[in-house]
Amino acid sequence: MSALRPTVDFLLHEWLQAGRLCGRPRFADHSRETFDAVLDTCERIAREKYAPFNRLVDTEEPRAVDDGQGGLKVVLPQATHEASRAFAESGMLSAAQDYEIGGMQLPYTVEAAAGAFFATASVSIGGGLLTIGNANLLLAHGTELQKKVFALNEFNGRFSGTMCLSEPQAGSSLSDVATRATPDGEGFEADPLGPRFRLRGNKMWISAGEHELSENIVHLVLAKIPGPDGKLVPGVKGISLFIVPKKLVDTEGRLTGERNDVALAGLNHKLGWRGTTNTLLNFGEGKYPVRGGAGAIGYLVGKPGEGLRCMFHMMNEARIGIGMAATALGLAGYYASLDYAKNRPQGRPVGPAGKDAAQPQVRIIEHADIRRMLLAQKSYGEGALALMLYCARLVDELRTGEAAAADEARLLLEVLTPIAKSWPSEFCLEANSLAIQIHGGYGYTRDFPVEQYWRDNRLNMIHEGTHGIQAADLLGRKVTMEGGKGLSLVAGRINATIERAIHRPDLAGHANALGKALQDVGAATKAAWATGNPAEALRNAVPYLQAFGHVVIAWMWLDVALSVPADTQDPAGQGRLAALRYFFHYELPKIGAWLQVVASRDPTCVEIPEEAF
Amino acid sequence: MSALRPTVDFLLHEWLQAGRLCGRPRFADHSRETFDAVLDTCERIAREKYAPFNRLVDTEEPRAVDDGQGGLKVVLPQATHEASRAFAESGMLSAAQDYEIGGMQLPYTVEAAAGAFFATASVSIGGGLLTIGNANLLLAHGTELQKKVFALNEFNGRFSGTMCLSEPQAGSSLSDVATRATPDGEGFEADPLGPRFRLRGNKMWISAGEHELSENIVHLVLAKIPGPDGKLVPGVKGISLFIVPKKLVDTEGRLTGERNDVALAGLNHKLGWRGTTNTLLNFGEGKYPVRGGAGAIGYLVGKPGEGLRCMFHMMNEARIGIGMAATALGLAGYYASLDYAKNRPQGRPVGPAGKDAAQPQVRIIEHADIRRMLLAQKSYGEGALALMLYCARLVDELRTGEAAAADEARLLLEVLTPIAKSWPSEFCLEANSLAIQIHGGYGYTRDFPVEQYWRDNRLNMIHEGTHGIQAADLLGRKVTMEGGKGLSLVAGRINATIERAIHRPDLAGHANALGKALQDVGAATKAAWATGNPAEALRNAVPYLQAFGHVVIAWMWLDVALSVPADTQDPAGQGRLAALRYFFHYELPKIGAWLQVVASRDPTCVEIPEEAF
Repeated sequence: MSALRPTVDFLLHEWLQAGRLCGRPRFADHSRETFDAVLDTCERIAREKYAPFNRLVDTEEPRAVDDGQGGLKVVLPQATHEASRAFAESGMLSAAQDYEIGGMQLPYTVEAAAGAFFATASVSIGGGLLTIGNANLLLAHGTELQKKVFALNEFNGRFSGTMCLSEPQAGSSLSDVATRATPDGEGFEADPLGPRFRLRGNKMWISAGEHELSENIVHLVLAKIPGPDGKLVPGVKGISLFIVPKKLVDTEGRLTGERNDVALAGLNHKLGWRGTTNTLLNFGEGKYPVRGGAGAIGYLVGKPGEGLRCMFHMMNEARIGIGMAATALGLAGYYASLDYAKNRPQGRPVGPAGKDAAQPQVRIIEHADIRRMLLAQKSYGEGALALMLYCARLVDELRTGEAAAADEARLLLEVLTPIAKSWPSEFCLEANSLAIQIHGGYGYTRDFPVEQYWRDNRLNMIHEGTHGIQAADLLGRKVTMEGGKGLSLVAGRINATIERAIHRPDLAGHANALGKALQDVGAATKAAWATGNPAEALRNAVPYLQAFGHVVIAWMWLDVALSVPADTQDPAGQGRLAALRYFFHYELPKIGAWLQVVASRDPTCVEIPEEAF
Repeated sequence: MSALRPTVDFLLHEWLQAGRLCGRPRFADHSRETFDAVLDTCERIAREKYAPFNRLVDTEEPRAVDDGQGGLKVVLPQATHEASRAFAESGMLSAAQDYEIGGMQLPYTVEAAAGAFFATASVSIGGGLLTIGNANLLLAHGTELQKKVFALNEFNGRFSGTMCLSEPQAGSSLSDVATRATPDGEGFEADPLGPRFRLRGNKMWISAGEHELSENIVHLVLAKIPGPDGKLVPGVKGISLFIVPKKLVDTEGRLTGERNDVALAGLNHKLGWRGTTNTLLNFGEGKYPVRGGAGAIGYLVGKPGEGLRCMFHMMNEARIGIGMAATALGLAGYYASLDYAKNRPQGRPVGPAGKDAAQPQVRIIEHADIRRMLLAQKSYGEGALALMLYCARLVDELRTGEAAAADEARLLLEVLTPIAKSWPSEFCLEANSLAIQIHGGYGYTRDFPVEQYWRDNRLNMIHEGTHGIQAADLLGRKVTMEGGKGLSLVAGRINATIERAIHRPDLAGHANALGKALQDVGAATKAAWATGNPAEALRNAVPYLQAFGHVVIAWMWLDVALSVPADTQDPAGQGRLAALRYFFHYELPKIGAWLQVVASRDPTCVEIPEEAF
């Protein structure tokens, strides 16, 4: 059993009471036993098909080679093919789907927990996150035939999926998307697969944009339909969403034998996360002319101009997925450095009379600073894991709860998602750095796994919305939306935890500290918005995000601790209480420095003249 | 001219008044003009021979190949050979040495500043730091013949040098060195090169331990001479120091044609800093039998048992050198991301009515969060550079000042060196992460230089004494030594800066904040040691190091700001005042959280049972 499993089991069952979900009609066939069986399977596949190849996929990067048709194809290690196949065969691609379309009707909470095993074993081999997100989006916004032809074949593993948003000139700024979609001739509206367009443009940073792991690739592409004057509408309102299959299919989902005009233009060579192919794709440049000419054939999803709304439908889960990947990497480094610290002898404890060199060396876990670095990692990684599972549980509430509870879950997720995405990406990266430090020089070599975790994790502050974008989302939208209702709800949940903890002597001090911290966040939020000018309010949005994140993780730890008896003799429980204390003593006090610049709308950074840098 | 040069010039001349050193006899031939000429030369060599090859030496790692004698030799890129030759030909290896041995009698302050140009251009091609340190050590502790045969040939570039301390079973714990040195037969004491021993043992993490960049390699090796019972003395007191040349030499420094019994056992494959060969060396295993048998021939330096004292002689400069490397990498990332931010258009400013997508995109330097990340880098990198040059100036004071001033400089260096080594290695690494973040996805690719800076910089918290060791040194020794005199001296210097700044309206608030911070450090120091038990005092030595470091950098910025008129219209001066404000508003308040656990001797990390992790 992995070191992760007992923590996952505790959080799912002792803390979140995930078994109660089985009382809902959708999950009525499930039980603790079926949940366990799913986790057992995922753990086994991760151990056998992912973990042994994590270094291999780092060193044998995807290569682009001639595809024999004048273009390029991608070569991946055999291990990636086998892991991909094992994942698809496990049924996890459709874990959350209805029985009637071959799914398991599993709660998202369990699906998210299962994902942690793959990501700790090898984050960049990947676990189908994009394919699942792609297919879910089609389920929500596609026509019946689009669901049948594309989504169902993604859930069953025949096809895989991508999300094509960014362009070379427009990374985070989607309003500047310049890919054009024009009607594909007479009768374009009558195609059974959806209104048919020809797309032309370049997409950047497309993960899994080209490979031969599946029979076909379903690209979901943001593009603009020109107006009557031939011009593109500025801004995000002009964006529509299209299905652009790599290979064309008929209405039964069979390949027609026609290659669509989507060409691999190049691969990105990355710092880490190298097992995942990351591509530049050219749509419609004529590399693979199809049905008489250049232009990638695409089928409109939803209404014109609603592309971004459709795409953002799945954003909560995608962002929780990134947070979970960051968390899993943080935990992987923790486990590796804990193992090293327990086995590596070096140095001696310092006593009142200094060190006694005649004594044998001790294992480094006996040194205070090593323990500090281990406990920091534990408090970051397990605290982040608690938040990920808490958010996943909210997703289930949103989907299957009573109306009022579902709406509350929706609002809580609005506020918590930017934190769930960003906090682990920053602090579990820091955890990975501490894991290197514990290994000393060995940690800096490629003979140990921790340097790769650190490199892999560095991506998570960038993709799926950078740290800066999450921060602007949180302070600029989420805490003010619907009259601040989301923020009030989060505060209410935190206060409920404080109320419970205040009665427990070992937790009362922490409960008070959290109450004070929550007030500080509230006051800083008000002060940031005191002038009502977004440019002033958002000057220090990232420090706000950091502080809010620390308060949320402190809340998680306090809430988790309520599931551990104060006098527990169970080492795992003692460890959780120690991690709680660490977080409250060493971490929570950091919010003062962050909130100070938020509350004063500190203008230092915006006022410096450009030529003074 | 590099972006670095104006900052170096300002700090050397406007701030540190380095020209005043020319009033001292040793530097009497020098002037601002000769200093400038040296920096011009170094800047040119760095630009022509280092910068263009920084990525090359990262991708073409050192390779071990058959040396035709049954062993291994190292192949390096041609660019490394050329950079190494250009560096040697510049005379910088002996920049600080006496004229009579071919040196330039340059102040160390100028030598250290020159080093920044090489390290920003390519830190891992290297600038002879080890060779200089090795030769300086021999100048201080070697016999006249050892100086002539070994040190002088290192200064002139014929030979290069290493420091062989660590062993596989003893990284930071030098008392566990197990390499044995036994007298080399009858008359061993009478060898003109020094008492002759045979060394047997394995050394680990030896930078530049094997290569063909120079005619010979002079290893300085820590080893133990067994007692009459054949046993090694436990602890550091049993350690002696030996010169072990790769190829034996005669008393004129000519190669005798005999290969010494030092064998390359393997190369370390690292996360970064890949241009530098890092080796495992086997001494005396019989791979290259010499003069009739196995055993590496070595010549004792200084007295038996004084090896560590000799080795630590050069530690200040070695550690300032590491701090400078970390600083230079931080600045390199700053310059790269500043350039990117000035040229990359993306997104639009948020106005009171949101964003106007009809407007063209702006350059990302116009976004508040990008400016925050740039100013953070500037405050870290230039603040660290100020500290490095301040410490270098103290080294000159130690060497050429009046007796009282020299002693004061010695004590100040004792306290400041652990910070000079550790602070840049932590915060200029953070700067490199911000440089990646500014680049977005591009920063995560190997098409841009910033990911390499980040990887390279990660080493600096590990080598030449880890963060934990620096922290224990600072809180465990340096602030208490000689009755706390070093700490008092540092406080006195800081207070002198505060005194001057308090009279300037734009700096008075910062002066008060620094005064308060200094008091907090003093109080935490006392509280940490309140029980007199080192194990309690040092529990949270790293947070102490971080807080002390932040106070020192805040002091540097306040002192630097005193060299900038409050109403300056010079953009560079305005930038320095903005970086000062950034550091005082965003960074200095962080010390509260760090010092809290120090002052309370927080036991959370030491009390958690091992099985609870």
